[in-house]
Amino acid sequence: VVRAPDRRVVATTDLLVEGRHFRRDWSGPFDVGVKAAAQNLADVAAMGASATALLVGLAAPGDLPVAWAEDLVRGLAAECARAGASVVGGDVSSADSVMLAITALGDLGGRAPVTRAGAQAGDMVAIAGRTGRSAAGLALLATGRTDGFDDLVAAHRRPSPPYAAGPEAARLGATSMIDVSDGLLADLGHVADASGVLIDVETVRLPPGPALRAAAEALRAAPDAPGIEGAPGTPGAPGTVAPGPGGLGWVLAGGEDHALAATFRPGTTLPGHWSVIGTVQKGHGVTVDSRPADGVTGWSHFR
Amino acid sequence: VVRAPDRRVVATTDLLVEGRHFRRDWSGPFDVGVKAAAQNLADVAAMGASATALLVGLAAPGDLPVAWAEDLVRGLAAECARAGASVVGGDVSSADSVMLAITALGDLGGRAPVTRAGAQAGDMVAIAGRTGRSAAGLALLATGRTDGFDDLVAAHRRPSPPYAAGPEAARLGATSMIDVSDGLLADLGHVADASGVLIDVETVRLPPGPALRAAAEALRAAPDAPGIEGAPGTPGAPGTVAPGPGGLGWVLAGGEDHALAATFRPGTTLPGHWSVIGTVQKGHGVTVDSRPADGVTGWSHFR
Repeated sequence: VVRAPDRRVVATTDLLVEGRHFRRDWSGPFDVGVKAAAQNLADVAAMGASATALLVGLAAPGDLPVAWAEDLVRGLAAECARAGASVVGGDVSSADSVMLAITALGDLGGRAPVTRAGAQAGDMVAIAGRTGRSAAGLALLATGRTDGFDDLVAAHRRPSPPYAAGPEAARLGATSMIDVSDGLLADLGHVADASGVLIDVETVRLPPGPALRAAAEALRAAPDAPGIEGAPGTPGAPGTVAPGPGGLGWVLAGGEDHALAATFRPGTTLPGHWSVIGTVQKGHGVTVDSRPADGVTGWSHFR
Repeated sequence: VVRAPDRRVVATTDLLVEGRHFRRDWSGPFDVGVKAAAQNLADVAAMGASATALLVGLAAPGDLPVAWAEDLVRGLAAECARAGASVVGGDVSSADSVMLAITALGDLGGRAPVTRAGAQAGDMVAIAGRTGRSAAGLALLATGRTDGFDDLVAAHRRPSPPYAAGPEAARLGATSMIDVSDGLLADLGHVADASGVLIDVETVRLPPGPALRAAAEALRAAPDAPGIEGAPGTPGAPGTVAPGPGGLGWVLAGGEDHALAATFRPGTTLPGHWSVIGTVQKGHGVTVDSRPADGVTGWSHFR
């Protein structure tokens, strides 16, 4: 029994399958727990809700060490605590590989849910949190060049969504919101499609930080290293985000950081942890510096 | 966003793994959907709540026919409709075998949740719905003797929990409740343990019906038929419920029918679809006709 003071409950569910969404040799069980919780709790925040509870289904082979499952639960609980939620129930089954089924619940606090569908021409586009760091960490792990990049590797293993920014955006009148799980351009594309608008992102407002620039430099020294073409969230598979000049490819197309992207009416005063990165215009799709962008795989003229 | 007029939401989650909880050669996709929904919706009813919503995670191999998934969803939706709920969301992933992760939500309508922990000495024990029919259907499927037993086979493939009886029991002041998923004695054992009481079941109040008696007779003619030792819910694995004299073993120990078992204060007037089957007494554990019973595997003196 979970409190739902608003008389409505926000609910979201995700599956994470070993080898597809995580690798036990790249992430320890605590990290897998943090990441599994984070991606669901971020979905709740992206609707403007405060997460209240997590339900966890764990399927695992009989030879999974008990300590692995215990550390997984610790990771889930730790990330829930960051979001103000609790693990309230679950189920366990045997299976041939590890699989997690997570459901997160949240409360809207009397506000209307924020969806992907409300962006209007003239709105500002802003993000809370950073993008590209998880993709950079994945590329570093895939090429074995992790030395000196602990923060980026940690960003891949344990995303840190800005949960409180979700309800905050709702209070500030956000017209649409999404958490950046597929990549900034791809997810803004979902907002643009649902809202029937065009979103233009200005790269001058999204400068890669020193860590991303250094990682891009390190990986450019190994252009044929394996793995950097793996899709976001699909370790080792084809299709990954290339860093692009100075790491900008990661910022625009890297997934799994679970930053929040939202649109606000012009003139809205945003707290400092929200950065304006573009504008909503009439039209459809996503542009980068007013030029067409491939919203799914990234910024095609960087390839 | 799911309504939660009570300001609390009941939430429960279950995993169903192919080969462990269902077999694609014994149950079609519609049936798997019905059963997956039913076992979660029954958990909600057993707390005295009305189910409102189902979230569905589906992991499946890439070669699963699309029609299989579509029929699965039809089964889920059909059973939700029986319970007054809707499928409101979900997630899909690839995996090596089919796995379902179901979360059900429900509303308490202003009543306290009914748990396993409130049974008191002097209470009546009653059930709504029937037990043993799913186990009999499983035994018939495992031995290939299904001719003339369509109803029992259907009971295994598509359980039909008495959802409305859950909130009804709560309104009638049920002191504890559980849905019979592991077997009547096993699940009453869970109530007895949680409540710190002894529950005595009277077999004269649980006569197997004609179908169970006929199935018991048919299987006695094939005492070494394969499969009837498979555990409830684990097709083909060792440990199944034997029919016992006249099918009584199935009634007492067969799982997965998702009947509701509840305890009520003495003198409570129960509607006709509730059958009194025993009493709550001081002590601990479960007895059958005042004799010790093995609450987990069934009625040991029938073995």
